[in-house]
Amino acid sequence: MRTILVVLVDRANFGRMWPVMRAIQAHPDLELRVLCAGSMVLERFGSTHQLVTDKGFTIDSKIYMEVEGSAPVSMAKSVGLGVIEFSSEILRIKPDIALIIGDRLEALAAAIAAAYCNIPIAHIQGGEVSGSIDESARHAITKFAHYHFPATARAADYVRRMGEAPRTVFQVGCPCGDFIRLLDHRLPPEIFQGGNPDVKIDPAKPFNVVIFHPVTTDFGGEREQVLELLTALDELQHPTVWLWPNIDAGSDHISKELRRFASMHHPKWLKFLVNLNPENFQRVLANAACAIGNSSSFVRDSTFTGLPVVLVGERQQGREIGPNVICTPPERAPVLAAVRRQLAHGRYEPGTLYGTGRASEQIAEKLAEVPLYLQKRLDYVNAEGAGQ
Amino acid sequence: MRTILVVLVDRANFGRMWPVMRAIQAHPDLELRVLCAGSMVLERFGSTHQLVTDKGFTIDSKIYMEVEGSAPVSMAKSVGLGVIEFSSEILRIKPDIALIIGDRLEALAAAIAAAYCNIPIAHIQGGEVSGSIDESARHAITKFAHYHFPATARAADYVRRMGEAPRTVFQVGCPCGDFIRLLDHRLPPEIFQGGNPDVKIDPAKPFNVVIFHPVTTDFGGEREQVLELLTALDELQHPTVWLWPNIDAGSDHISKELRRFASMHHPKWLKFLVNLNPENFQRVLANAACAIGNSSSFVRDSTFTGLPVVLVGERQQGREIGPNVICTPPERAPVLAAVRRQLAHGRYEPGTLYGTGRASEQIAEKLAEVPLYLQKRLDYVNAEGAGQ
Amino acid sequence: MRTILVVLVDRANFGRMWPVMRAIQAHPDLELRVLCAGSMVLERFGSTHQLVTDKGFTIDSKIYMEVEGSAPVSMAKSVGLGVIEFSSEILRIKPDIALIIGDRLEALAAAIAAAYCNIPIAHIQGGEVSGSIDESARHAITKFAHYHFPATARAADYVRRMGEAPRTVFQVGCPCGDFIRLLDHRLPPEIFQGGNPDVKIDPAKPFNVVIFHPVTTDFGGEREQVLELLTALDELQHPTVWLWPNIDAGSDHISKELRRFASMHHPKWLKFLVNLNPENFQRVLANAACAIGNSSSFVRDSTFTGLPVVLVGERQQGREIGPNVICTPPERAPVLAAVRRQLAHGRYEPGTLYGTGRASEQIAEKLAEVPLYLQKRLDYVNAEGAGQ
Amino acid sequence: MRTILVVLVDRANFGRMWPVMRAIQAHPDLELRVLCAGSMVLERFGSTHQLVTDKGFTIDSKIYMEVEGSAPVSMAKSVGLGVIEFSSEILRIKPDIALIIGDRLEALAAAIAAAYCNIPIAHIQGGEVSGSIDESARHAITKFAHYHFPATARAADYVRRMGEAPRTVFQVGCPCGDFIRLLDHRLPPEIFQGGNPDVKIDPAKPFNVVIFHPVTTDFGGEREQVLELLTALDELQHPTVWLWPNIDAGSDHISKELRRFASMHHPKWLKFLVNLNPENFQRVLANAACAIGNSSSFVRDSTFTGLPVVLVGERQQGREIGPNVICTPPERAPVLAAVRRQLAHGRYEPGTLYGTGRASEQIAEKLAEVPLYLQKRLDYVNAEGAGQ
Repeated sequence: MRTILVVLVDRANFGRMWPVMRAIQAHPDLELRVLCAGSMVLERFGSTHQLVTDKGFTIDSKIYMEVEGSAPVSMAKSVGLGVIEFSSEILRIKPDIALIIGDRLEALAAAIAAAYCNIPIAHIQGGEVSGSIDESARHAITKFAHYHFPATARAADYVRRMGEAPRTVFQVGCPCGDFIRLLDHRLPPEIFQGGNPDVKIDPAKPFNVVIFHPVTTDFGGEREQVLELLTALDELQHPTVWLWPNIDAGSDHISKELRRFASMHHPKWLKFLVNLNPENFQRVLANAACAIGNSSSFVRDSTFTGLPVVLVGERQQGREIGPNVICTPPERAPVLAAVRRQLAHGRYEPGTLYGTGRASEQIAEKLAEVPLYLQKRLDYVNAEGAGQ
Repeated sequence: MRTILVVLVDRANFGRMWPVMRAIQAHPDLELRVLCAGSMVLERFGSTHQLVTDKGFTIDSKIYMEVEGSAPVSMAKSVGLGVIEFSSEILRIKPDIALIIGDRLEALAAAIAAAYCNIPIAHIQGGEVSGSIDESARHAITKFAHYHFPATARAADYVRRMGEAPRTVFQVGCPCGDFIRLLDHRLPPEIFQGGNPDVKIDPAKPFNVVIFHPVTTDFGGEREQVLELLTALDELQHPTVWLWPNIDAGSDHISKELRRFASMHHPKWLKFLVNLNPENFQRVLANAACAIGNSSSFVRDSTFTGLPVVLVGERQQGREIGPNVICTPPERAPVLAAVRRQLAHGRYEPGTLYGTGRASEQIAEKLAEVPLYLQKRLDYVNAEGAGQ
Repeated sequence: MRTILVVLVDRANFGRMWPVMRAIQAHPDLELRVLCAGSMVLERFGSTHQLVTDKGFTIDSKIYMEVEGSAPVSMAKSVGLGVIEFSSEILRIKPDIALIIGDRLEALAAAIAAAYCNIPIAHIQGGEVSGSIDESARHAITKFAHYHFPATARAADYVRRMGEAPRTVFQVGCPCGDFIRLLDHRLPPEIFQGGNPDVKIDPAKPFNVVIFHPVTTDFGGEREQVLELLTALDELQHPTVWLWPNIDAGSDHISKELRRFASMHHPKWLKFLVNLNPENFQRVLANAACAIGNSSSFVRDSTFTGLPVVLVGERQQGREIGPNVICTPPERAPVLAAVRRQLAHGRYEPGTLYGTGRASEQIAEKLAEVPLYLQKRLDYVNAEGAGQ
Repeated sequence: MRTILVVLVDRANFGRMWPVMRAIQAHPDLELRVLCAGSMVLERFGSTHQLVTDKGFTIDSKIYMEVEGSAPVSMAKSVGLGVIEFSSEILRIKPDIALIIGDRLEALAAAIAAAYCNIPIAHIQGGEVSGSIDESARHAITKFAHYHFPATARAADYVRRMGEAPRTVFQVGCPCGDFIRLLDHRLPPEIFQGGNPDVKIDPAKPFNVVIFHPVTTDFGGEREQVLELLTALDELQHPTVWLWPNIDAGSDHISKELRRFASMHHPKWLKFLVNLNPENFQRVLANAACAIGNSSSFVRDSTFTGLPVVLVGERQQGREIGPNVICTPPERAPVLAAVRRQLAHGRYEPGTLYGTGRASEQIAEKLAEVPLYLQKRLDYVNAEGAGQ
């Protein structure tokens, strides 16, 4: 019997991880434990830890680790506080494996805590390429991880090329696909009833969806970029649902510009939403006319349903994209042109770039059967047969 | 004019870094700033920050970040506290480049703080392979670093293979060689006068030197291993200088066994020393009959002077070694046999595996001229020409 | 020449402290240093550190110490992180005296950091009585402080009765009075132009002002209380400016209820404002028809101008109040009755309960001349002559 | 059924608390939970948490919170880290009452964590007077505590005079007396067999015991003081057991001087011991010819058995002492004279200044029956009948 500690750090994490959590629970040789951290435990971000308990999972501990500031230095301090906090909980639970997904600072903090506490780590979504500090954090997590579940063939290749032993790398596809595959994609009629009641977005008619996060390595640039984006969309006046940005450095700048725009222009075509649960989020992606912004879900999840995407700016640069994605710089004219092209095109064929939606059982099975070990060593040495 | 922030976290760091620091100071386009952290600022470890000021450098800030415990969980918390502390100082100094050496948890903390604060990082000694958690930390630092100064050709190759852009990798040799090259190797007659005055070690006669650190990924195993080592050396009764272990998890266990052995057996052949400054440490390596243990200096620095080394256990497994090094498991019989073989052999020819002792000026020059950038991206993508 | 380190932790702090800061700057034997911490450095709270630099002061360091959560546990963690952060800065600046005001968790953290770093502490606003955790924090700060500047005769008496030596207690009045005395009280015509542009509050006509903070020791009760308050005021429909709550546990609940009320009822009589600088805040107090809520400024600052106040709930219970204040429980009917009574009554005579607006020079003078000492000892022992 | 969380932070704590813990366990309406923190969990200080489990108690969590440095700033940071760590555990356990003893920084951290987490606090040993930063910490803890168990009549009086409501103050004597009353005072023959085997101290013959802690508010002065003390005792050459100092700022200086003295002079009359369990520690106090130094146990515990004490320096200045205690400055001549006077006098009559050894059941009983409340308010207001 192995104890698997799943670390969840934001709503998107949970949307991708819950099929895996269910598979772990269902596996006779695995016991599930859960930590919720980061923006999941914050009311300001909708207290999404409640989604976890709503789905019948028990949360072992909620971890408060976000140092306020929405600045590079407060992100750094959040990593530090996160390592301090995670290590206590990881030591208390003493899992056989810590299962971590993604590339956020909270995931990095969990990986460091687990690694220094001598807990083997399994990592989902390694080997991908993007912009922002997430790029560095993702590969650093890979260097601490003992097992890898990359989503794509290229990602698996990259993980191995970074010196991870091939026997520890399992390409299974992204578990977000499992979630999408099993979901009833129909939009609930009341889905857009939150937020400003003066704005009505009809889910039965074509609508766009926007998510725009800051690029931490270009801190300060986000103000200008979000204004370009707003200007483009204001010209279009297409019904649009805009989801609030994450907690990274610069997100307060973005929020401020969005609030200012809303209170100055009262756009009737634009609704801001804080809260979409993972099901409804996927339903929105499955039904939107076009997605605009820089969320990794626009790259990843969109492939499963053929959502037309306009990917804006550097944040996802380097990621593998399907034919449904058009990349543009964060400037009014090209964004506007790309959205118009995507609206004209309509939805694309679903693709399998990020898997076939059957990752969860494979992950659980591997977690149950792989040999546990602690001491990592760059695989180049073994590969050379030098071994020494 | 670029500001280079050098991060020093233990005595060994400083021994290797001060030629680099001098070269930075001497460079017309560079300004040197210095942080001292970790065991350097602790009286228990000899307050080696004073060596820095003794050499005429100004310390910008001393960073207290070690959480007591000598356990895996306290190491993890030290990383966390370190990130919190480093980020304040790095933000205050706002250097153009943070220059970090090695693979200790304190170096990892500095790298994370710098990376999330959007400060470019240059890293010395990346690409090497070893045991202990340092193995993972070293490669994680590589994934946060923007420029790399690996010591050996293999290390440079490994850094590039891990996905770092070749234009950012400069193989210059280890700067410890610069230090050794310039040093007067003669032992001061009073060098072994510290510690227990009942034990006399004559530096003019053959003596061994021992350093034995814990392997964090084998936490708990260090007690048994140090006893095996003590038993082997007690059988040999060769005059021996034993230097205190570092601050990693398990070091309190080692210290305890050493104290117990000393108070039970009063070995006249064995002197424990806390304090050797970097010059005297290198002089000891340059003159010892044999070095026994698992310090990375036994692998690295030893090659420059052909010191016979018995490398014990897993801690350095995977590192490139010269012909002067014999590897053994941490067991009485093989250790004893290997030491006898090395004593019979005598000193080896000096080698250039870790460079020719001319790294410092090259490092300073590169720090002055490389273009600064923040956004890293796994180089495999560029190499493929895919770009996207 | 003495270095005085002023610690500012929220906008209200600065409103009260800047006359003192000016007096320190003007004093020939004092040098001013400034730390900004807490919500002052957060964009979410209006980045009020800019007010400090706008007034020509230099900020030595900005301290990020707020752990997100708006919950009791995150408040506790904020104290802890604050102590860690303040101690680095205090050690670096090494002031002769740390000057701290009030009772917030950030002030407590600064006091603990200074005390353990052996820096003498002077405290403004000790000896007062209130509800919330502030009550305990305020007296704990008194027990760490070496000199005391209480605002009222009763507060000075209480500080002495708590065992502080009478020679260390100087009753000077509250420095907020200095600020109010010197201020041009006329309201700028555009003062209420921020926030929702659909709501117009005419500063030339009678308006109420509301601030309602959570009571941390009654965490969870704030939702019900703010709804009672909203209901009362909605019945009144009197033009009202509502200022956002502080960062304490429970404030997110209050914000949520306020947002929900606004988006459901679109009240034309009610404007929410995040940003009022200290001058405009005092102008609002000096001109409002009635102040409703539980801000300490309603107790303290209001006395100087005779503002009619309805003090709601337990948060300020125990404070000395002037005849201009009516206390009510946080319930619709009594709040409504009290507001009506105050509106009928109109403004009161100004009072001197919290001083005469001449505190700042006295504080600066004392900081320059008092003997410095570190070792405190409960004065009862001295008073008994036992002394031992 | 009430859950009582006992916070233990050093060996001395446990010696005093375990009768209380037993009484809590034995009480039908109370459930015991235990946190071990501070030096109790450190191998360097003898891992005294094992004494707790040896006595059959279950430890809920071990808290690593000591930031290395033995300096004022590292003490401050330890408070901060302690608050962060304690708050997680206190939130997890959610006790009805947190029971805290003494005045150390770890106890302060626990009190702040509990107070901000809205957990009622009961405090043992409030109202006493001493030197060092402990003086301020002790009274600050009183200002956070909801119930008080002071040891002496004067201490109870002082707690009330500080503004604590009389109904919350229970003078029960110090629970260390319960421990001493029930203990078999005979010394085990092997009690002094640890430490340096070359020094033999015969427990059957007269011996002195020394403990000398730093005075944090006189940081830096401890070196000179311990040398004066060593010189005095070296002149006396009376068999002496010296117990290692605590973890406060300056203790590394003391340890260093002790080690230097031992290695230079090989004193045959002087044995250093790290490890005495609470039973043996009390046996040593019960049998020593004279106790010399500045431990609070020399003031407090000594009264129960009439131990002759020479109380050195400022650390305990202000505490209530019995006739068995002579106070001296930390200087050779007066220390020597006082020790000679005490040796000539021999043991004193036992006294009841710190109680009659029947505190534990009273404490447990009160914990079970007092009404729980959160909101404190300076009692002067109630006493005045003002209420407001």
